[in-house]
Amino acid sequence: MREDVSQMKWWGWGDEHTEFDASDKPGLMPFISRALGLQEEDEQVVGPVALEDVELPSQVLTQGFLDEMRSSLREDQVKTGDKERLVHSYGKSFRDLWRIRRGIVDSSPDCVIYPESEDDICALVKAALAHDVVLIPFGGGSNIAGCLENRESNSRMVVSLDMKRMDRVVEVDADSCVARIEGGTPGPVMEKQLNEQGFTLGHFPDSFEFSTVGGWVATRSAGMQSDKYGKIEDMVLSLRMVTPSGVLVTRTVPKSSNGIDVNHICIGSEGILGVITEVSMRVHRLPERKEFYGYLFPDFESGVRAVRECVDADCMPCIARLNDPGKTALSFAFKSKSGETFFKKLLGKAVKKYLSAVKGFDMDKVCLMIMAVEGDSRTFRRLRSQVHSIYKKNGAFKLGISPGRAFQKSKYDFPYLRDFAMDRGVVCDVSETSTVWSNLLPLYYSTIKSIEEAILSTGVQSFAGCHISHCYHTGTSLYFTFACMENGKGTIDQYLRIKKAAEDAFLRGGATLSHHHAVGYEHAPWIEDDISETGLLAVRAIKDGIDPAGVMNPGKILPGDRPLEDWGLAEDEAQESQEAGS
Amino acid sequence: MREDVSQMKWWGWGDEHTEFDASDKPGLMPFISRALGLQEEDEQVVGPVALEDVELPSQVLTQGFLDEMRSSLREDQVKTGDKERLVHSYGKSFRDLWRIRRGIVDSSPDCVIYPESEDDICALVKAALAHDVVLIPFGGGSNIAGCLENRESNSRMVVSLDMKRMDRVVEVDADSCVARIEGGTPGPVMEKQLNEQGFTLGHFPDSFEFSTVGGWVATRSAGMQSDKYGKIEDMVLSLRMVTPSGVLVTRTVPKSSNGIDVNHICIGSEGILGVITEVSMRVHRLPERKEFYGYLFPDFESGVRAVRECVDADCMPCIARLNDPGKTALSFAFKSKSGETFFKKLLGKAVKKYLSAVKGFDMDKVCLMIMAVEGDSRTFRRLRSQVHSIYKKNGAFKLGISPGRAFQKSKYDFPYLRDFAMDRGVVCDVSETSTVWSNLLPLYYSTIKSIEEAILSTGVQSFAGCHISHCYHTGTSLYFTFACMENGKGTIDQYLRIKKAAEDAFLRGGATLSHHHAVGYEHAPWIEDDISETGLLAVRAIKDGIDPAGVMNPGKILPGDRPLEDWGLAEDEAQESQEAGS
Repeated sequence: MREDVSQMKWWGWGDEHTEFDASDKPGLMPFISRALGLQEEDEQVVGPVALEDVELPSQVLTQGFLDEMRSSLREDQVKTGDKERLVHSYGKSFRDLWRIRRGIVDSSPDCVIYPESEDDICALVKAALAHDVVLIPFGGGSNIAGCLENRESNSRMVVSLDMKRMDRVVEVDADSCVARIEGGTPGPVMEKQLNEQGFTLGHFPDSFEFSTVGGWVATRSAGMQSDKYGKIEDMVLSLRMVTPSGVLVTRTVPKSSNGIDVNHICIGSEGILGVITEVSMRVHRLPERKEFYGYLFPDFESGVRAVRECVDADCMPCIARLNDPGKTALSFAFKSKSGETFFKKLLGKAVKKYLSAVKGFDMDKVCLMIMAVEGDSRTFRRLRSQVHSIYKKNGAFKLGISPGRAFQKSKYDFPYLRDFAMDRGVVCDVSETSTVWSNLLPLYYSTIKSIEEAILSTGVQSFAGCHISHCYHTGTSLYFTFACMENGKGTIDQYLRIKKAAEDAFLRGGATLSHHHAVGYEHAPWIEDDISETGLLAVRAIKDGIDPAGVMNPGKILPGDRPLEDWGLAEDEAQESQEAGS
Repeated sequence: MREDVSQMKWWGWGDEHTEFDASDKPGLMPFISRALGLQEEDEQVVGPVALEDVELPSQVLTQGFLDEMRSSLREDQVKTGDKERLVHSYGKSFRDLWRIRRGIVDSSPDCVIYPESEDDICALVKAALAHDVVLIPFGGGSNIAGCLENRESNSRMVVSLDMKRMDRVVEVDADSCVARIEGGTPGPVMEKQLNEQGFTLGHFPDSFEFSTVGGWVATRSAGMQSDKYGKIEDMVLSLRMVTPSGVLVTRTVPKSSNGIDVNHICIGSEGILGVITEVSMRVHRLPERKEFYGYLFPDFESGVRAVRECVDADCMPCIARLNDPGKTALSFAFKSKSGETFFKKLLGKAVKKYLSAVKGFDMDKVCLMIMAVEGDSRTFRRLRSQVHSIYKKNGAFKLGISPGRAFQKSKYDFPYLRDFAMDRGVVCDVSETSTVWSNLLPLYYSTIKSIEEAILSTGVQSFAGCHISHCYHTGTSLYFTFACMENGKGTIDQYLRIKKAAEDAFLRGGATLSHHHAVGYEHAPWIEDDISETGLLAVRAIKDGIDPAGVMNPGKILPGDRPLEDWGLAEDEAQESQEAGS
């Protein structure tokens, strides 16, 4: 049987996944056509590209290492076949999917190993050191910053260390609300085990279906309920990380003053220091009540004001996802047939007229807010009423429960839309950052402008939208989505220019290279600008001290001498950029 | 004039300070007598020890360094006199005060430099590197973990880098609730500048009068309102730190995913990597209303349950300081004459009878809770009523506003009590830690037992008490206070045995070496046990990478080969301890 590798999309090859049914979204294709100028004939079916047609990079197999592994592990824990190698070649960035659907596999691990215990991992790391073999920790494979790709430049054998068999909630200390969880546990598997004991972690990133606890911690992930539950780094009490210098173990205490916080050396380390085998996390009792609601704000600015007032009044809902006009239009286009009917009724001519004439809404500027409140009945009612008052005061029109529930139902669907769009020759991706309140709107305007200009300069029509979904006392995240049609040159270059425009805008605008997507190699060209030369030196010092042989996930976080070239820009373009930047 | 060095107490020599008026605390001496067996004749007046009688360690002056400094700074920024050296010799630990009041100055810096800008500090660090001179950052001088003491073992010249002239709130971004504050700014100076603009940092450690922003960040400090405002590490958005490898600068953003978090490399670094010159902190609008209240719980366990229920119900007051029976007795003994009258009235025979007979209180077990609520009127009322219900449900008796206000008035007084007690030959200090809820009471019982046994083994009567004052979703801090009479041997040994018993109990009991007092050299013997060998290696790697010449604050955090001996235990005792521990 010829197996089609271009079936590797947001989901992995053979993974269980949600079915994305475009036929239930009647507004979607018209929207894409309108926004991007997609013609019917643009539908571009790439492939099928069969596994046997893909030329995998030549395989480096260090026999001594393999012998040692096969003697300490079972046979089915050590795999060197083409399919295993391919599935572990990339994460799920636009660049990754773009390559895989064309059968371009220019880097790949040589072997995949499935540890089942910390002891297995210790044996693996020991053998890797003894035989100078590179290890790349692999959780759910959903990373979009290039953290999972083989970037070894010294021709050593490279092993993808797949954590999927370490997927247990080991222990719940119900009195303390602390759960000890194995690093390889995927979101749904973890929540099921926690829910059975009455708890939730409260961490629901868009990648939830396919990402793991260890991966979240290693990348400083954020979930859609972070306004209530915090970012992943706020949830970690302690962890265990196997490194080339031994097992790093911290104590399960709420807070400490024990010098430099070594939890924070492991959190965000993206596999360059070791493998996170276990994390003790803060968990919460399941809420009594929870409901989602939709609101329409007259414009983005009034929505931002409302979010800010909720923060000030200490009444943040657990979700407050404010879409700008672009993302609002996309969200409406994304709704199902039943949603369509609902919206036709709700936003039918009479209501639209009311919004325009009476409330003075400009329907091209309206912004959809998805809001969710949870808690015991009393807290639920108090929060809902406080939030509603603040939204209303800022001019919002309440859409009610239906759009909220629609969001809840489709909350993990957006990444599937990317595959749907890519099937039709669309370049589309996201870039996200965070900044303080006073800089929020300036950064929003300037980034949208930069992205749009970059897209237009590639000769095609531009879509750029943004939403705000993680709020803090001092500011928020800004999550940009951009899209355009491929301009027919058939290279990744068009994408890189747009991505670069977004990241440049962040750094130029005083923001950070990513709020929750990690550095990997995709954002490495901006790391020095973000954390300063001395900050980078500190990170290098830890790397050199813990992993002097450099066997752990090389080429991530720490850039080489020519970061933009390593990233993929042609030498002259990289040169040009560097000069423009300096 | 003969100046009395034993006047260096909790306050510095010549510092403005609160007057501690024992004559207004009629219950204090009777309590100390009862608790510790103090006899009237025990009052031990040490000194006066005049500066000219103190033998300061011989002074190492590297002329090339001094010339360079005097050419880049003004004359009054570089001081080498005896008084300056003495004042910067120690922090304010029990051991520090014990030595200073006897005129024992066995270590001291050779020179004190007062930078007035980051440029001054850059010049200073550059000269230190060029001439192999050691630098010890010095904020308010209140550290009690030995962070400020000269522990240089290679006879290099040692400079105390006093930050007191960098004491400005540089900028308040009111829209973002972010304040940029110079590292040397002391608590009161900072709050005054913030209050004038309508803000507060919300950080009020016991050392508030004498400690600085940079010191708080470098030691991972916690203030008495941490339940509302968080620990200092939760407040930092970005910082600037001058290191021997350049200036480390991070970006002022609420959150990021930019690899290993370099803010957290600087936070808690206790001067071993560099000097924190500036921090951008999360600040808050001043609350509309605030009030303190006192409650009596029938016992410690019911108080703990009440605190826990407030955490679960998400209605933590901004202060909830629960004293165990020992600390409750001390608090009552600490009250002023007017408080005495109030308590006589309130806890007069009739009420005591009511509490005993009707409510079944055992008056030897009652526990005082000081609680404070703040916020806008609505939040204030809601919180107060929620907390009150929970306290009442757990058997608490409301004492009302007076004891709360008494606490508020005397909230920075406890360190002064230590000097008062030391004047009378009392050994007294604190040790604090944190643990998860399920371990809270077991750790409390076992630590009290360890401390009491250690004191008794030194041949004197024992006092050990505890309070809880920093609460988290997963646990709390535990703050132990211990006291006994000096046993007449005239050495620091008695103190070290007791302190060691407390720290051993923490580590053996699964807790951490300190919740907010830092490592310094006082807690260095326990660091490896706390963060693991590999964790310590990571910290060493950063130190070696950023400060390869080892000029920044040697001997802190990172222990030597014989940590307990370096700490002060005689060789045979240290040996014995090590064997018992292993």
